[in-house]
Amino acid sequence: QRPPCTEFDMAYFHSYAHVGIHEEMIKDQVRTETYRQAIMQHQSSIEGKVVVDVGCGTGILSIFCAQAGAKRVYAVDASEIALQANEVVKANNLSDTVIVLHGRVEDVEIDEEVDVIISEWMGYMLLYESMLGSVIIARDRWLKPGGLILPSHATLYIAPVTHPDRYSESIDFWRNVYGIDMSAMMPLAKQCAFEEPCVETIVGENILTWPHVVKHVDCYTVTIGELESVHTKYNFKSMMRAPLHGFAFWFDVEFAGPAMSPTHSHAQPSLTETPVDGNQRKKRVNPNEALVLSTAPEDPPTHWQQTLIYFYEPIDVEQDQLIEGSVTLSQSKENARFMNIHLEYASGGRSFVKESVMR
Amino acid sequence: QRPPCTEFDMAYFHSYAHVGIHEEMIKDQVRTETYRQAIMQHQSSIEGKVVVDVGCGTGILSIFCAQAGAKRVYAVDASEIALQANEVVKANNLSDTVIVLHGRVEDVEIDEEVDVIISEWMGYMLLYESMLGSVIIARDRWLKPGGLILPSHATLYIAPVTHPDRYSESIDFWRNVYGIDMSAMMPLAKQCAFEEPCVETIVGENILTWPHVVKHVDCYTVTIGELESVHTKYNFKSMMRAPLHGFAFWFDVEFAGPAMSPTHSHAQPSLTETPVDGNQRKKRVNPNEALVLSTAPEDPPTHWQQTLIYFYEPIDVEQDQLIEGSVTLSQSKENARFMNIHLEYASGGRSFVKESVMR
Repeated sequence: QRPPCTEFDMAYFHSYAHVGIHEEMIKDQVRTETYRQAIMQHQSSIEGKVVVDVGCGTGILSIFCAQAGAKRVYAVDASEIALQANEVVKANNLSDTVIVLHGRVEDVEIDEEVDVIISEWMGYMLLYESMLGSVIIARDRWLKPGGLILPSHATLYIAPVTHPDRYSESIDFWRNVYGIDMSAMMPLAKQCAFEEPCVETIVGENILTWPHVVKHVDCYTVTIGELESVHTKYNFKSMMRAPLHGFAFWFDVEFAGPAMSPTHSHAQPSLTETPVDGNQRKKRVNPNEALVLSTAPEDPPTHWQQTLIYFYEPIDVEQDQLIEGSVTLSQSKENARFMNIHLEYASGGRSFVKESVMR
Repeated sequence: QRPPCTEFDMAYFHSYAHVGIHEEMIKDQVRTETYRQAIMQHQSSIEGKVVVDVGCGTGILSIFCAQAGAKRVYAVDASEIALQANEVVKANNLSDTVIVLHGRVEDVEIDEEVDVIISEWMGYMLLYESMLGSVIIARDRWLKPGGLILPSHATLYIAPVTHPDRYSESIDFWRNVYGIDMSAMMPLAKQCAFEEPCVETIVGENILTWPHVVKHVDCYTVTIGELESVHTKYNFKSMMRAPLHGFAFWFDVEFAGPAMSPTHSHAQPSLTETPVDGNQRKKRVNPNEALVLSTAPEDPPTHWQQTLIYFYEPIDVEQDQLIEGSVTLSQSKENARFMNIHLEYASGGRSFVKESVMR
């Protein structure tokens, strides 16, 4: 029943042993401040309660929870960074409250039920790294009925993108290099630049229309099985005439309280995947005014940036032109931490398929 | 006699198959424009002559030589990028002049002597990648007596550096993280941030005094043997009171004509390694007004940036305080493309040793 710890998992855990990745995440103020605010907003659910922090890293979220009055915080991380978290906890005289456990959530032992799960598990494109699985395991092993999960919900979006500058810098550049026509380089340039997903920052102006929801995750009810493969069909209508260069993915997460959620039910919350006024709504309905951590292009940038999949050739689209297709995200068989992205798209009577792997 | 092509060599060649590295080098205008100017300045030695371009990449320097009137240019590269260079040459109708040879200079055949060798062989810290060895092999296989090598000379420098902002961002940062004392992270931060050489851009203000010449290379006379290990003693006198954070390395190369050089003699040109007016001179004497491509901190930045070796702890030095020691650069036994950097330094009565590997 306990999944094996593969050599890919070992390499993945080890990649978090380097301090630089933690420095980058902590210095991402949108990320860290939103988590701190969420903890403070839910202080009444944390005070005097037992918390588990899944993938605690340097332990900063665990310490925030201790500061919010948690009775006990289990800070779990399979990376060697857990040893550092333990030093930080000791130096802050929090060893009575924060218990650092160096191991996988599958393997460590916690001899009580917990009231709260907190985790910063989101990877690029939300699901890259497959760390949500660890939250699910922690939930199923330890969370009390009615307990709190922070964040409570996550949503992955896709939208069509125009990005002439990016294309020009990498591809058209070869047309005239110090006066030499090096356009013979362009096929290789397209392949090298656009074969794999690119993590980079775009802005709202790069987006051709409202995004489509690829996947909405209710952290209370999501199962490991439903993350193995995510499939959705989309249907965009371009709001402008522009070259379509590819698609962008981004996500947001919500920090709703358990009372606000249909806890442990498999009912889907009311998403706006269906057209409203003939178009998709930009964001999910958020009736509870829950705190949201957004990585959308129109919001302040984060270390997650956006994930772009560029076509080899742009497609010229007219205003109101339809862009239809589907996207399938699945764990790579080569390495479950990798993600296969199967993209089908059609517009103006031509259809295409693009396979990418996020490694 | 012909050195074997190791799996490290194969990996090294393959790393140049990706278009991004060529885009970066070509877009480095200091690099590419200086090479173009050097070719134009030496046009009289190139016109109607036979040239070999060692490590031609996309072939841009070979095409510059063809534009300068070369009779024939052998463009040699062991990376698959040579196939692209061939496409570029064909598309520019230069196939009669530029002959692309896909292979190592050790392995390809050129059935004539050459008048000119051009090569952009410089790695980080000048010698990283060990590509100068390929220029030496090409010279010894094909260059006519009295032939031209571009660049003709190269000089590697070292200087003591103060960089409080860099230290503060990576290390002092942990003292106060959203109000939490995370200084327990500092030993790991120092190890992760400063164990290996850092390639980054500093400015003239970071340099505590005039640099010291680690190695001067005369491309006409240098031997592979003398590059296996480079050793020098240095002796700096700090021009200011400051925390000494480490040492910076950078280089320049000169494009002098063969008449200006003591061709095929082993006499060293007059370097200013000896103190002048009680101090080192900043640059080598350059009586020939040869074109120089500099990667010094006070000059416009290039893609080589500078290479920094930081100490785990800064050393406070007073104005005029001596900083003495030695540096030894040697090929790694693990991988001849890697470089071991053995640094000894002493100041204010304390002495230290730091070993780094540039991978």
